Amino acid sequence: MKFKIRTAKQEDCKEISRMIMDLAVYEKMPEQVKISHRELERDGFCHNPFFECLVAEVPEEHKSSQGHTTVGYALYFYTYSTWKGPSVFIEDLYVMPEYRGKGIGSGLMAKVAQVGKEKKCVRLQLSVLDWNTPSLDFYVRKGAQDLTASEGWHALRFDGEALDKLAAEAPKD
Amino acid sequence: MKFKIRTAKQEDCKEISRMIMDLAVYEKMPEQVKISHRELERDGFCHNPFFECLVAEVPEEHKSSQGHTTVGYALYFYTYSTWKGPSVFIEDLYVMPEYRGKGIGSGLMAKVAQVGKEKKCVRLQLSVLDWNTPSLDFYVRKGAQDLTASEGWHALRFDGEALDKLAAEAPKD
Repeated sequence: MKFKIRTAKQEDCKEISRMIMDLAVYEKMPEQVKISHRELERDGFCHNPFFECLVAEVPEEHKSSQGHTTVGYALYFYTYSTWKGPSVFIEDLYVMPEYRGKGIGSGLMAKVAQVGKEKKCVRLQLSVLDWNTPSLDFYVRKGAQDLTASEGWHALRFDGEALDKLAAEAPKD
Repeated sequence: MKFKIRTAKQEDCKEISRMIMDLAVYEKMPEQVKISHRELERDGFCHNPFFECLVAEVPEEHKSSQGHTTVGYALYFYTYSTWKGPSVFIEDLYVMPEYRGKGIGSGLMAKVAQVGKEKKCVRLQLSVLDWNTPSLDFYVRKGAQDLTASEGWHALRFDGEALDKLAAEAPKD
């Protein structure tokens, strides 16, 4: 099937938002999604955007059962390693179920890697849930190292009251 | 002991670079450090910087045995959750051994949390090595959740040839 990968425009945020929810349902945490297309439009298309995004499109004749032609997305941003320098991090990589196995996911990831290399990134990173073996296998097949398994890296998070409490402890200037 | 936390200036990169190496030695991977103060000066102090940094300073009379007054740093950048919105990620948090237990590490982290909240970040995240129990305990005591333990998130990385191969597979526009 023919598909096209392009940089997302602000007008794509409604479609991206729809797929973010689809992905959250797949990851078994739909109630966790607190932002809508409005926040995406604000945070990704401002002067210093928090993220960049690619979308995958299929021609009208291959539109989905619900009539969608935007069938996948990769949302990413830049991080920094104090050992190696700039890196690109893929927050979300998603292809609608009926469009999987056609190289769209691989195409989106390869495009992010290409964009990252153009920005002199020396790493591409992402996080995967350990029970999500299809994705884990997909990435490892493509050459990813599992740093949690090999080096023991754990992801920690502060949010809600823990974050408020932390910020309140900041020394006065 | 009196100490001051301030935003890093480009001139601080030599001192930050010295402490990055100290931290890598502590993390048992000093040979992994491939960048110097020159890359930090370029990547952190350009138009769209890849990171922001805070440094902790002590007064001249408390300078270290090697004569340093810059005794700690926190290097961080902004990431994005498609479920919650902007987040701040601490890449490195370091205090020189002879200055630990004086609240400098807590002060640096609290200041990053404060800066993050000013940018409307709803999360502060970081990665810790599982054998590094002093740091793990320090963060958990402050209210951090271990997402790898609780939700099973694994960190994956592509670099070197794997990244080159990925980028080479990008579909032509």
